[in-house]
Amino acid sequence: MSRYWSALVGQLDPYVPGEQPKIANLVKLNTNEHPLGPSPKALAAISAAVNDSLRLYPDPSSDGLRSAIARHHKVDVSCVFVGNGSDEVLAHIFLGLLRQSHGPLRFPDISYSFYPVYCGLYGIDSETVPLDDAFRIRPSDYVDSARPAGGIILPNPNAPTGVALTREQIAEIARANTQAVVVVDEAYVDFGAESSVPLTQSMPNVLTVHTLSKSRSLAGLRVGYAIGPAELIDGLQRVKNSFNSYPIDRLAEAGATAAMDDEAYFAEACAFVIAQREVVTAGLIERDFDVLPSKANFVFARHLKTDGASIAAFLRAQGVLVRHFNKPRIADFLRITVGSEAQNAALLAALDRLPK
Amino acid sequence: MSRYWSALVGQLDPYVPGEQPKIANLVKLNTNEHPLGPSPKALAAISAAVNDSLRLYPDPSSDGLRSAIARHHKVDVSCVFVGNGSDEVLAHIFLGLLRQSHGPLRFPDISYSFYPVYCGLYGIDSETVPLDDAFRIRPSDYVDSARPAGGIILPNPNAPTGVALTREQIAEIARANTQAVVVVDEAYVDFGAESSVPLTQSMPNVLTVHTLSKSRSLAGLRVGYAIGPAELIDGLQRVKNSFNSYPIDRLAEAGATAAMDDEAYFAEACAFVIAQREVVTAGLIERDFDVLPSKANFVFARHLKTDGASIAAFLRAQGVLVRHFNKPRIADFLRITVGSEAQNAALLAALDRLPK
Repeated sequence: MSRYWSALVGQLDPYVPGEQPKIANLVKLNTNEHPLGPSPKALAAISAAVNDSLRLYPDPSSDGLRSAIARHHKVDVSCVFVGNGSDEVLAHIFLGLLRQSHGPLRFPDISYSFYPVYCGLYGIDSETVPLDDAFRIRPSDYVDSARPAGGIILPNPNAPTGVALTREQIAEIARANTQAVVVVDEAYVDFGAESSVPLTQSMPNVLTVHTLSKSRSLAGLRVGYAIGPAELIDGLQRVKNSFNSYPIDRLAEAGATAAMDDEAYFAEACAFVIAQREVVTAGLIERDFDVLPSKANFVFARHLKTDGASIAAFLRAQGVLVRHFNKPRIADFLRITVGSEAQNAALLAALDRLPK
Repeated sequence: MSRYWSALVGQLDPYVPGEQPKIANLVKLNTNEHPLGPSPKALAAISAAVNDSLRLYPDPSSDGLRSAIARHHKVDVSCVFVGNGSDEVLAHIFLGLLRQSHGPLRFPDISYSFYPVYCGLYGIDSETVPLDDAFRIRPSDYVDSARPAGGIILPNPNAPTGVALTREQIAEIARANTQAVVVVDEAYVDFGAESSVPLTQSMPNVLTVHTLSKSRSLAGLRVGYAIGPAELIDGLQRVKNSFNSYPIDRLAEAGATAAMDDEAYFAEACAFVIAQREVVTAGLIERDFDVLPSKANFVFARHLKTDGASIAAFLRAQGVLVRHFNKPRIADFLRITVGSEAQNAALLAALDRLPK
């Protein structure tokens, strides 16, 4: 703590992202990156933008990118907000839509661990809602007429569990909470779950968040977006324009636009991960793991005999990085990204060397 | 106003950046971009980074870029903070260091118009301090023993005036305000003013902010940074890691690192602007303008006979974009970016057509 810090800084408990190792030759299955590269059209569009026009500011409203996102999702461009990664989009949502005095923000006890960090940053009162014993979100747990929520945020599929709600279950939560915005964080939705984007076109309180870091293989470019009713998007634009006029650089705008437009590559890349997820799941079950049913590009699994910290450490020693959360209820689980065929084979081969 | 917005959203008065026109062939002298392109080494480094590794997250701590900045400024890497443009860096500074209960944040009445916007976003109590009649910042105006400041922020050179303080004048302000952080926003310092970076190495309360958008010709890439005592930088890291783990994408990291390392190109590009600034200044004086003494890549000038709004409109009709602020004290001024030789000649030729 420094005398020069604002009072809140000493109280912050910053988010810790998964390790980005600076050593080579690790099988990196710890941060849910896509095993395939980005769309070749995205790479070509970026290369074409590497020129002297980088001396000029980008379009502050990112109209080209927002239009491409609108085309993909079949919504109006006024329903699209973009930011420097979905983490920035989420930050603006917490400040602009989820800081409410009429009730607490609710989210699952096991979910994206950045949510409580944003609450600390912006002084938002929050409550966690436990997952059920099968690590599922129960929509009925988000109905509280005695103490209505000021906001609700849910990852779908949930992270780190990978378990998904149906669109109708999301609608049930939104209908029961018309006093609050229901944010559906769909970072992983393209790997098999139902998107809530259609709900945003008929319900005034549903906002969906996506990222290009997962299904578009562009974690290195930092682009995320929200889709929702124009009134909610307008509120986010006001926050964004009070924070940073130009969050999307010219190269990100070019690459992300081309990636959104390349529907064929997108479908193929998602299908690859879904097929490999089944390979990994079957391989883990064969090796004495209990695997939660995943709709994401990762699986959440626990060994029936060995504790989670020990397996994570064993795998690291074998050159395989997975994510382990030393937290109540999930300390025996590993979150394992679905990798390339070679990476997945290396994971399973390493597990074959686990001491009995 | 929407029922779903947080209370503050309706009260925001967002920043409005200079126009980024979507029509071609305008002589664009309104947003202080550099007339030359970026370092060819920066473009080459970006091109080399356009590959499948974009599927991976960037280094969340941007160590390579921070080291290059540290080398250029001859400081330790622990003294360097980076962000997605200096606007993001400033936002984190306002929240992390300038929101203080022991006194108001002070800044000049005429300065970067984003400062009051940040105050609105984060609920920071502020006071403006008038420039003197020659549009200069007077350091003695920032000494108030009866009501010490909670923080001070000054652009140096000031924007939109272009007028600079000396390093010793900045030191005078910092010595008189040991209770507060003094932020020196040096977006334009490389065009001839004295940097306060050396002060950050001996005074605990001086923090300097730079951008690659101006002197490095990389407005399209969005990279800015702060240099200061490690304790202040540590506070900013805590805020950043509670907002967005990965603000600098892989391409920005590659290009900005190469740009910081290309000292020869940097020196040449700055010298070009400084020489052209003298051409523009002399040309404006010949055409009946009063021009403030600028150390920036723009000049702030008023015509002796015609009001500012009229000249700005006249120039736009001639295809020349300059920035006009319809604000008290400066409504008759134009802020004119120093452009290429051809752009500057076009500006002066357009003014020759101004009706007498």
